[in-house]
Amino acid sequence: MGKYMKKAVVLLSGGLDSTTCLAIAKNQGYSCYALSFDYGQKHRAELEAARNIARKFHAERHEIVSLSIGSLGGSALTDKSIDVPNYMSSNEIPVTYVPARNTVFLSIALGWAEILEAEAIFIGVTAVDYSGYPDCRPEYIAAFQNLANLATKVGVEGQQIKIEAPLIKLSKAEIIQAGHELNIDYSFTVSCYKANTDGEACGECDSCFLRKKGFLDAMIADQTKYQACIN
Amino acid sequence: MGKYMKKAVVLLSGGLDSTTCLAIAKNQGYSCYALSFDYGQKHRAELEAARNIARKFHAERHEIVSLSIGSLGGSALTDKSIDVPNYMSSNEIPVTYVPARNTVFLSIALGWAEILEAEAIFIGVTAVDYSGYPDCRPEYIAAFQNLANLATKVGVEGQQIKIEAPLIKLSKAEIIQAGHELNIDYSFTVSCYKANTDGEACGECDSCFLRKKGFLDAMIADQTKYQACIN
Repeated sequence: MGKYMKKAVVLLSGGLDSTTCLAIAKNQGYSCYALSFDYGQKHRAELEAARNIARKFHAERHEIVSLSIGSLGGSALTDKSIDVPNYMSSNEIPVTYVPARNTVFLSIALGWAEILEAEAIFIGVTAVDYSGYPDCRPEYIAAFQNLANLATKVGVEGQQIKIEAPLIKLSKAEIIQAGHELNIDYSFTVSCYKANTDGEACGECDSCFLRKKGFLDAMIADQTKYQACIN
Repeated sequence: MGKYMKKAVVLLSGGLDSTTCLAIAKNQGYSCYALSFDYGQKHRAELEAARNIARKFHAERHEIVSLSIGSLGGSALTDKSIDVPNYMSSNEIPVTYVPARNTVFLSIALGWAEILEAEAIFIGVTAVDYSGYPDCRPEYIAAFQNLANLATKVGVEGQQIKIEAPLIKLSKAEIIQAGHELNIDYSFTVSCYKANTDGEACGECDSCFLRKKGFLDAMIADQTKYQACIN
């Protein structure tokens, strides 16, 4: 089963966006190969969430690639000497930015897509509520598509591994609405940068703020599991 | 020392090309941050060579990033079920091709360059004796430069992390000549895909064939350490 279906590699962090992305890929008829990364992120619960989600969505395979980039430093998400701050509205690129993270993740997805002879790579970036990260913009995705065409065997042979970013023009509320229509149970997803080991969210970091606001704007009950004292 | 010098991240495999590249970067006045990868390559001796070379060339730092992409399969260099073949002249992309390897390596270099506020990334690819890998061509490097400009904080702010590929138009013989002028002792470098634990080369794989031919064409004595029985 799944042998003659078109294949897609789906980047799966275990959060709300990437889970919606997986549901969309599945709904489009792809046999899905979920790919997660252990890059020394402090919020380990998201990897456990990714495992559960890959299972629930019957991913053909789920690979967790380990990547020791934490030692290079530079982000509050991996560097023990930098605290993850609570939400602050700002136009600046925040300290939670992991340098070149999406480029690294897409590159490894590209390698796997070549091996699998997959037709597409799905990535759940969004340029609307994008937290100010440069590698979430449409022009960035277009540049990666161009690179992918030149970097690969199949590209050289004139085929394309399509970089699909179906959420790129959606707000968080629109993503949640799309997921709701696909019957996603978001209680299993973890977006929080400070989630505890049970995957319960802090409710106060950037990522929690955007997620909470998304459920409010979508007028859909927030299924997130919060840590007891806040909610 | 090195604090006010311009910085470069240099991809260092421990082979002849990347070592020449490091010498060129140093000669251009860069303070060099050497970056190697442990991606499950069977030829482990190259990592030991990289360590020695980083030390000999007084790299400011040397990081070895671990990357568990071997489990994704697909290349004779990482997949235990595929043998590394001896040299065969062919226009096809060989089984030693690691899917998207240079893209993955450059992406991680890009992240580190952002953290270090480096001005350049040096990569020792060559399009002349390029073994048929698609990610060694000038148009590939240009596409990565474009991506780098869009993917990074500094790029968004209008600066550029320059992707330098100083060997791209050089033949193996010309690379060896360039290195010879910079007084590189190539006996410490390991290019062989089947090197033994002492870093001695097999003399028969693709990589050995191109290297041997390079020394012959350059009319420079081959400093490579070969395994006893072949030479």
